[in-house]
Amino acid sequence: MTDHLTVLIQSIQPTNRAAMTRARERQANLTKPAGALGDLEDLAARLAGVFGSERPHPCGVAVLVAAGDHGVASAGVSAYPPEVTPAMVANFLADTPYGPGGAAVNAIARTVGARVYVMDAGVNADLPAHPALVRAAVRPGSRDLSVEAAMTPEETAALILAGAALARQAIADGADVLIPGEMGIGNTTPAATITARMLGLDPAQVTGRGTGVDDARLAHKVTVIRTALARTPTTSPMKVLAEFGGYEIAAMLGMMLQGAALRRAVILDGFVEGSAALIGVLLAPHLRDYLFPAGLCAEVGHASQLNQLNLKPMFTLNLRLGEGTGGVLAAPMLLAAAATLREMRTFEEAGVPHG
Amino acid sequence: MTDHLTVLIQSIQPTNRAAMTRARERQANLTKPAGALGDLEDLAARLAGVFGSERPHPCGVAVLVAAGDHGVASAGVSAYPPEVTPAMVANFLADTPYGPGGAAVNAIARTVGARVYVMDAGVNADLPAHPALVRAAVRPGSRDLSVEAAMTPEETAALILAGAALARQAIADGADVLIPGEMGIGNTTPAATITARMLGLDPAQVTGRGTGVDDARLAHKVTVIRTALARTPTTSPMKVLAEFGGYEIAAMLGMMLQGAALRRAVILDGFVEGSAALIGVLLAPHLRDYLFPAGLCAEVGHASQLNQLNLKPMFTLNLRLGEGTGGVLAAPMLLAAAATLREMRTFEEAGVPHG
Repeated sequence: MTDHLTVLIQSIQPTNRAAMTRARERQANLTKPAGALGDLEDLAARLAGVFGSERPHPCGVAVLVAAGDHGVASAGVSAYPPEVTPAMVANFLADTPYGPGGAAVNAIARTVGARVYVMDAGVNADLPAHPALVRAAVRPGSRDLSVEAAMTPEETAALILAGAALARQAIADGADVLIPGEMGIGNTTPAATITARMLGLDPAQVTGRGTGVDDARLAHKVTVIRTALARTPTTSPMKVLAEFGGYEIAAMLGMMLQGAALRRAVILDGFVEGSAALIGVLLAPHLRDYLFPAGLCAEVGHASQLNQLNLKPMFTLNLRLGEGTGGVLAAPMLLAAAATLREMRTFEEAGVPHG
Repeated sequence: MTDHLTVLIQSIQPTNRAAMTRARERQANLTKPAGALGDLEDLAARLAGVFGSERPHPCGVAVLVAAGDHGVASAGVSAYPPEVTPAMVANFLADTPYGPGGAAVNAIARTVGARVYVMDAGVNADLPAHPALVRAAVRPGSRDLSVEAAMTPEETAALILAGAALARQAIADGADVLIPGEMGIGNTTPAATITARMLGLDPAQVTGRGTGVDDARLAHKVTVIRTALARTPTTSPMKVLAEFGGYEIAAMLGMMLQGAALRRAVILDGFVEGSAALIGVLLAPHLRDYLFPAGLCAEVGHASQLNQLNLKPMFTLNLRLGEGTGGVLAAPMLLAAAATLREMRTFEEAGVPHG
């Protein structure tokens, strides 16, 4: 690992347990029956730990969408052609009557005032110049993971650091809540491969339909993943990421690590993001405490990831789009959880009788 | 029924099926895999029906919290004393450093820019004058439903119309999304009684712990409900509401009916709201199409209500607070669903390849 990456990983500190304890004490005295806010109380207490205050006040929300292409896409693992990746990057950046971006993540982000950042992490196209496009590609797409290592160790480290740099930018711009998101035709294949290896599960247990492949292509996708896993027995997290991962997965890992290092909340959107998180918590175990899963997505294998991370999703809307869309839907719930802890009055302050 | 109430009920029209069809056609061409936004696509199509446009643009969100006391509370069905009801009304209206209101609903509403309206629907206390308190009480709390009819037919109609009037006010103030909410110590008892009768279920199947009663008190609560149900065999919705219901339940029914009549989306928060909705859809079957359930709440019986209404909740956070809190958490999801339909570009507009 590079020195920069080692420093980044080592800079991730535990969340603030004392603030969490004060948050729980405060919750017991807020004007509501004990536990009546359900899971929102757990979210609020975790946010107290992240932000080091029993009255946390997270503000800005940023979605960081990393796009990358995949050598394995040519193996027929997706329902869509690789040309969709650059076209969607252009869509994320397009001028529309409603504001920048015509994709789902743009539309949803506007409803919550979240800023969308777009990174070329390795798209196989000459993307047109755009002031809002962050260029971090070192190669126009990963190598075919079923044949060879998808990325070199140097490329992997470069993309992790590029993701970290974008997270720092978003935080400098005011973000307290980071949502790594992704776009990359074929990328549920590397995500499932990483997940199978990190969880020690058979590929069939964690491989889903991605953008919507049929039964035959799903079976082929499992075979491709089996072939990839057979190439190497490594379980070292950085090696697993390089062997099987895509550039946007490495970039999202960097965003997560940097978010945690700077004590921000990181919303964990979907299955591809989950594969980055599985790598991340082995590199930096405290990372887990900065992660807040959004919805349980429709991709099989996502539940296994969240079980391993011991994290509970906020909703089940059966999303399977990516782009960080589920994360943006979850952001208002996080802000609401923090607000209850911060702004509710206690029984004593309100003069409400209680037991 | 009064003439005004009959007119209100008859003014509820079907949602716009043509707009829903256009919404589904539009969704098939938006830049995402077919169905990838999961349940959000169903929500968006339903909103197209409510607002009569395949590009719906709901804006303002209003929480309408009706508070009422209950004669049955003296029968020991709640973990909290009735004095909590007026104290919480004062809390909803209190000046705090963060803005008006120190309760959970106030804190959460501020995070989404929702306006909170507070109605005295029948609180057993002399509430202090407050410019933001809507006074609609006809009696300081309902009668004990286990002994006699909780409300007279005239009182019931008056509170339904008062709820409708507050909904009209909120809509005049700019609300496109209405969230009826409630506060009333003891009110899961009338809600469970109504639910048992309307669904033909045994009280034990729909009676929960409310604010948190223990096993012994839960058994007592079921007995009280059984006694109430044994008083009368009526299944007429207006009679069921008067016999068992509380004033705030009648007020929330009025809000729902008026919201639907004025073609606004109504978020259906929890179990007490659900009991009003069960009455409402029998009075006006089209009401159902204007209702959007928030989370599945922790109160047993809520799932049975939603099954009967054939409506699917947006999340499961195990809330059991009331006040409309779950509804406010759901509001951003509705606005996001509408935004995807309204603001996403089509494959053709974006030049994205597709099948």
